[in-house]
Amino acid sequence: MTEPATQLAPNTLRLKRMGIDSYQEPVLYMRRDCHVCQSEGFEAQSRVELALNGTRVVATLNVVDEAFLDESEAGVSEAAWRLLRAKEGDAVMLRHPPPLESLGHVRAKVYGRRLTDAAFDAVIHDVAAGRYSDLQLAAFVTACAGDRLDLEETIALTRAMVNAGERMRWSEGRVMDKHSVGGLPGNRTTMLIVPIIAACGLRMPKTSSRAITSPAGTADTMETLAPVELDVPQIRKVVEATGGCIVWGGAVRLSPADDVLIRVERPLDLDSQGQLVASVLSKKAAAGATHVLIDMPIGPTAKVRSAQAASLLSKQLTQVGEALGLRVRVAHTDGSAPVGRGIGPSLEARDVLAVLRHEAGAPADLAHRAIQLAGDLLEFGEAAIKGQGAALAAAALDDGRAWRKFQEICEAQGGMREPPRAEHTLPIVAPRSGSVISIDNRRLARVAKLAGAPKTPCAGIDLHVQHGEFVERGQPLFTLHAASPGALAYAAEYARSQPDTIHVVEDA
Amino acid sequence: MTEPATQLAPNTLRLKRMGIDSYQEPVLYMRRDCHVCQSEGFEAQSRVELALNGTRVVATLNVVDEAFLDESEAGVSEAAWRLLRAKEGDAVMLRHPPPLESLGHVRAKVYGRRLTDAAFDAVIHDVAAGRYSDLQLAAFVTACAGDRLDLEETIALTRAMVNAGERMRWSEGRVMDKHSVGGLPGNRTTMLIVPIIAACGLRMPKTSSRAITSPAGTADTMETLAPVELDVPQIRKVVEATGGCIVWGGAVRLSPADDVLIRVERPLDLDSQGQLVASVLSKKAAAGATHVLIDMPIGPTAKVRSAQAASLLSKQLTQVGEALGLRVRVAHTDGSAPVGRGIGPSLEARDVLAVLRHEAGAPADLAHRAIQLAGDLLEFGEAAIKGQGAALAAAALDDGRAWRKFQEICEAQGGMREPPRAEHTLPIVAPRSGSVISIDNRRLARVAKLAGAPKTPCAGIDLHVQHGEFVERGQPLFTLHAASPGALAYAAEYARSQPDTIHVVEDA
Repeated sequence: MTEPATQLAPNTLRLKRMGIDSYQEPVLYMRRDCHVCQSEGFEAQSRVELALNGTRVVATLNVVDEAFLDESEAGVSEAAWRLLRAKEGDAVMLRHPPPLESLGHVRAKVYGRRLTDAAFDAVIHDVAAGRYSDLQLAAFVTACAGDRLDLEETIALTRAMVNAGERMRWSEGRVMDKHSVGGLPGNRTTMLIVPIIAACGLRMPKTSSRAITSPAGTADTMETLAPVELDVPQIRKVVEATGGCIVWGGAVRLSPADDVLIRVERPLDLDSQGQLVASVLSKKAAAGATHVLIDMPIGPTAKVRSAQAASLLSKQLTQVGEALGLRVRVAHTDGSAPVGRGIGPSLEARDVLAVLRHEAGAPADLAHRAIQLAGDLLEFGEAAIKGQGAALAAAALDDGRAWRKFQEICEAQGGMREPPRAEHTLPIVAPRSGSVISIDNRRLARVAKLAGAPKTPCAGIDLHVQHGEFVERGQPLFTLHAASPGALAYAAEYARSQPDTIHVVEDA
Repeated sequence: MTEPATQLAPNTLRLKRMGIDSYQEPVLYMRRDCHVCQSEGFEAQSRVELALNGTRVVATLNVVDEAFLDESEAGVSEAAWRLLRAKEGDAVMLRHPPPLESLGHVRAKVYGRRLTDAAFDAVIHDVAAGRYSDLQLAAFVTACAGDRLDLEETIALTRAMVNAGERMRWSEGRVMDKHSVGGLPGNRTTMLIVPIIAACGLRMPKTSSRAITSPAGTADTMETLAPVELDVPQIRKVVEATGGCIVWGGAVRLSPADDVLIRVERPLDLDSQGQLVASVLSKKAAAGATHVLIDMPIGPTAKVRSAQAASLLSKQLTQVGEALGLRVRVAHTDGSAPVGRGIGPSLEARDVLAVLRHEAGAPADLAHRAIQLAGDLLEFGEAAIKGQGAALAAAALDDGRAWRKFQEICEAQGGMREPPRAEHTLPIVAPRSGSVISIDNRRLARVAKLAGAPKTPCAGIDLHVQHGEFVERGQPLFTLHAASPGALAYAAEYARSQPDTIHVVEDA
């Protein structure tokens, strides 16, 4: 039995973990008739500040009528539970949060005004502290979408995002980093580039993201091979020992506002150049990088769809980087088709291992892209003279140094392991004989996600054909991998409803 | 015991009312391990369509781990429960909602493009059908805020909002209506104007709103005196019998998209001229009005703050009205201070009754405003010749016809009653002797809301002083009314922290 409410301090309730996953927004559940609701005038959708042992979290209130809660209890969603780092039954203080003054700046931006550095600092500080509701975040993201941030504003936003989190510091000298703009399934070059660069003597502490809208992020793929949730001292130790690392950036609070904004950017799926630049560069600056190479695949179904868009985005990345003291180079690459064969964490890890180990059938396109980008990085970091970076990178891959370095990094991160394999597979075959004239990255990504990627690491797609290839009717175009027959059937149903995802046209 | 899931059709679960009030967004709760979640690949924040007896509702998913639900159950929030009109245990079909094509238009608007009539129709149709999540609504509202809708777009939005709901039809002849733009606490002229107009022989079927961000809407205030939740046939009966009505517009589906948009407009608190115009005029057009008088109070803390803003807004209201076949007139009125003495449903109702009954101390400003506006309406409806409307209105108020008509209307709506009174009151006194140089409408409204208005009808503020009045130190400026000591203390704390809400300055 819980103690009566009268034995608790005013505005205090006992915490209860509700086991409700409301995605990332912290939600609070209170009874309509509890003394705090009554005295504070809280109602459904009120923003409420919860304070526990010095941690403050602002949550959105859902009012509960029925039997879930005792009068003296405050229930919290999983996101709130994690943020509070609470124990069941802890006494939590509830009150109105301080007024969110920075919302005035969001309104100004909505009305089309320019924001100052101080305004971005105020907004991003509150965002990182979790003071914005999802609706307020959506308003901010929408108001900054399209081309509504100019260069100065993008610089201010990026700097504010760096300042709102931790910043890693490295000893003197170059710290190399790279980022792929995305939209290209299977583009796991990072896991090849880091060991190549480290094997060639440059430092490359790489923090990667988990998938946001894609079937796998580099962190998801790397996690099938080694632990990726390292803290800052652990990362430092790995990099000091091996020259590189491939870890999940979300485990360290580098640009935490970015992690918050992503939770509304994902469902809204709005393109915003300014926010993209701020997101990428704030993470790199916070990670302590000095030299950043941006891999920007261009293609009709990639994130960047035209040379013109690429050129605008590259210019902004370089300028904002410069303002933040980062040297930024952009490599425009082919974004017309997926890279490698696998789409999904385990299947992509398998491709990476095949390249590192020189296995028969290792995807040549993945190896080629990694060598080109690693070559650019080696030249950028002055570890190779101009024009010879790619050859140096290829040599490190060919003679096994990259593979040894990769194993070294995995061991330093906590131990290397084998990626899991799917128990259920199903080939999707060509509906006719002919040539593959296009491959739709977005729809392929959707099929892989319906099969369970990235939550289920073994799930995804194994691609069997390439752009331009001739296929016979009934020949497998790709194989679905899933952990359950239900997920397999579900992905198959969608794949069959979209027969042109890999578009085969009869030859004339 | 519930039956095992295998006895239900595929993708079918038994409905459970969770008793969770998530405000207006429908939320669905499912166990992570239930067969529908697994086979459909649903995860936290997925949008899921629920189908039951031909009713379809799209809800946002919260995934539940623990003991709330059986594997064969789908829990729903109060909003979803109301929309489904379900019984406990009904078998509900769950599936991915059809793709929300109209979101493409929202994105186009976010990126700054103009939208066509067809685009607004598509968006508003989906909004009214509940297919937009709160985040998507927030993006739409934000993208249209400020002055981002031009005249043509505002007309298209308004027309789309009318088309998305019911429309009341009246027999031949003029149908008068009025609307106050708001921001002025206590501005309850509607409850005086309707009986005056009806007593003078014009028809005035008035649908009013409940409070959105204010301490009382006309519907909240009227409800302390008579029922306001009437359906269309009941409204028709009342108007045919008495010539007028004062009912809650939300009980009839006039411009239902507006009711949906308001749920995100309220917490975001964004001003949007286009949306304001569309909101006001779509309701009026749907209510079958032919002549609409807009009361537009102008003042530094009112919704419209300058003559210039008023003139822009008036022009747009008139032009959009014309495009929809409505005759619109705008009366610019004084918005510098609250009207009447009471702020909060019961206290405002008391002021209205005092004016109707010619009680001693009845607020003269409320009576004066009502007479002016009723006079404008009588002239607009050609029931008075130009320049004589106000005199005619004053006569109807003075000789008791308006009071008799008001009682008639209340009886026709279901019976007149006395407004409830607060059990707990507390005077807030002048901190010094001097003159009242300003009254902050927004902060007064906040105090009234903290005291419990409008959810607690008896709660609010009783104002004792007027702009320009001389007060002695310690003299009550206003009295707080609340239903509980907690709410009273809470409002008092805020009121004392804002001593200049009624700004008293020592005379020189």
